[in-house]
Amino acid sequence: MSTLPLPFPRILLGPGPSSVPPRVLEALGRAPLGYLDPELFEALTELQANLRTVFGTTNDFTLALTGTGMAGMESCLANLIEPGDEVLIGVHGFFGGRMAEIAGRYGAKVHRVEAEWGQPLDPVKVQEAASAAGKLKLVGCVHAETSTGVLQPLGPISEIAKAHDALFLVDAVTSLGGHPVEVDEHGVDACYSASQKCMGCPPGLAPITVSERALDVVAARKSTVTSWYYDWKLIGNYWHGDHMYHHTVPVNLLVALQESLRMIVEETPAARYERHREVSEQLMSGLAKMGIRPFAQEGYRLNTLNSAWIPDGVDDIAVRKALLTQYGLEIGGGLGALKGKVWRIGTMGESAQVRHVALLLAALWGTLHG
Amino acid sequence: MSTLPLPFPRILLGPGPSSVPPRVLEALGRAPLGYLDPELFEALTELQANLRTVFGTTNDFTLALTGTGMAGMESCLANLIEPGDEVLIGVHGFFGGRMAEIAGRYGAKVHRVEAEWGQPLDPVKVQEAASAAGKLKLVGCVHAETSTGVLQPLGPISEIAKAHDALFLVDAVTSLGGHPVEVDEHGVDACYSASQKCMGCPPGLAPITVSERALDVVAARKSTVTSWYYDWKLIGNYWHGDHMYHHTVPVNLLVALQESLRMIVEETPAARYERHREVSEQLMSGLAKMGIRPFAQEGYRLNTLNSAWIPDGVDDIAVRKALLTQYGLEIGGGLGALKGKVWRIGTMGESAQVRHVALLLAALWGTLHG
Repeated sequence: MSTLPLPFPRILLGPGPSSVPPRVLEALGRAPLGYLDPELFEALTELQANLRTVFGTTNDFTLALTGTGMAGMESCLANLIEPGDEVLIGVHGFFGGRMAEIAGRYGAKVHRVEAEWGQPLDPVKVQEAASAAGKLKLVGCVHAETSTGVLQPLGPISEIAKAHDALFLVDAVTSLGGHPVEVDEHGVDACYSASQKCMGCPPGLAPITVSERALDVVAARKSTVTSWYYDWKLIGNYWHGDHMYHHTVPVNLLVALQESLRMIVEETPAARYERHREVSEQLMSGLAKMGIRPFAQEGYRLNTLNSAWIPDGVDDIAVRKALLTQYGLEIGGGLGALKGKVWRIGTMGESAQVRHVALLLAALWGTLHG
Repeated sequence: MSTLPLPFPRILLGPGPSSVPPRVLEALGRAPLGYLDPELFEALTELQANLRTVFGTTNDFTLALTGTGMAGMESCLANLIEPGDEVLIGVHGFFGGRMAEIAGRYGAKVHRVEAEWGQPLDPVKVQEAASAAGKLKLVGCVHAETSTGVLQPLGPISEIAKAHDALFLVDAVTSLGGHPVEVDEHGVDACYSASQKCMGCPPGLAPITVSERALDVVAARKSTVTSWYYDWKLIGNYWHGDHMYHHTVPVNLLVALQESLRMIVEETPAARYERHREVSEQLMSGLAKMGIRPFAQEGYRLNTLNSAWIPDGVDDIAVRKALLTQYGLEIGGGLGALKGKVWRIGTMGESAQVRHVALLLAALWGTLHG
């Protein structure tokens, strides 16, 4: 089969970025406003209101950080942790591991509680680890493990955090906009995500929400936040009140996120979650018919990131290259120990469409058996 | 005079962002590629080559960080400084002050050498401060002080850094693409800029270049770099070699920067610097005819950011509001102690055009005397 001439638009069914709707690309490509333009602040106010809806929160501090999802993670740990603080991090995949690593860089004494990749955290083990630790400042976990495709139930972990009077930190990078996160209902104190997954926006922004309780803890710090760029106090002073200059925010990306949030609200979050569920089911059902088995444990599978075992004898790299060059379809490979063993197929935001999954299934069949 | 209906495209003559050329906006609004797409790496390789040309360097580590210019500053200090290191920072404006502040957050013992706002640093004072300090790890200064409109000659400061065997750090946020920076010629070890000023690209990226010598110093650190997100080693491993995943880079912004760098190379850097010089001269000459005096010291004035005293009795806020709402023209006010006292008028990148300056002069005349 001949290779298509490059460049041609991709259909992004990897772990992110996902494809971006034309409406959002149009907003992105508008002539920029200045960072103190009154029209920009109107846009940011609307963005914040809609972001609160999607996070399921009334938190005042709900905004989009400059940087990608990992900047959201770093900002949470940089602000919430002081050297010597004890924290408990649930590690059931690559990104939980990162949370633990970065917490360590900011001086925390890190207690890790592990689960096998493909499984959620075991609340009994989390409870045991919390009880064995000293006074915990923070309990953190990943809601949607992009490395494994596992959805972590937040309720049980939140209860443990509350029982130990610890802050509850949640990574919602691959869930926000695709699964309900419900920050207030779950008593989450800090939650971050990324613009380029289920939000349907290009990469470069990290939506974040922080509770009053967590902000009070930050205000009572004995030490200065090492990171100036991600210091919440300085960032809050730009987004709120007198809009004090901190850095030149990425106005084009923010206007694009404003537009993608409008699309989420217009679709309604509930309908959006149902669309993600249906498309994921279509995909997993189609893979099953080809004999391709799911990786993540049943009952805990994400609708946004679908992990599946690569069939025996199949060349991971060759298949993904054929999908990309022949069909313009991107899917993801495994991370860490899962490299070459699983595929990670994203059905997120604009990419969560019946026609994209139908094409992927046809293309995969053609590549494996054609 | 009636107010124009909003929104309408701005002509950005403030301290940044500057207006973005249609070619770059078109590139920005293209459907995104995945962060491991071979086509993206082709784009990044071209971006890096052209960025080396603009920086005037052969440094291998020359790339665009995710984040704005201030992220570039933070990344340099986070990587180059270990707790207890002595550093000397030249402070001749707001941004030199920030460099000193952030260096302190990363644990440096900071020696500040000050100059009056509107003046460059006095090399004699810098030399005295360097000799009075302990063993200096780093000497840092701001090439183009956005707060004052002063261009700092790099040669004398570089010589002092070399004489003390210290690394030389330069902020080129408001010069790169508008004034020659010449990193290698000036023996600069680390230099960062921003995409949204003289580069003609939207905000969200921090071009950066780092010498082998500086990378060796980082490799020999005793302590881990606190910032994971801006850890140069991890970022370098994504941009080079096997392209190890670090974070999902902002692909749309990177493709936009690739396009704006193409435009710089096509225009040629020399012609671009001359255009900035001519347009700045047109502006300052026009202001002089209205009796508006320059703020920055003659002989050290930036062509990219023109500072001028607000005439006695003129209402800063009212004038800037009239320019914005009646003409769609943005200019900047003063920072810190200069608030209400000076205007900061950017003639950077796409905004450095004869017709924009002609309109601004007419609009300013109309607003002040109409």
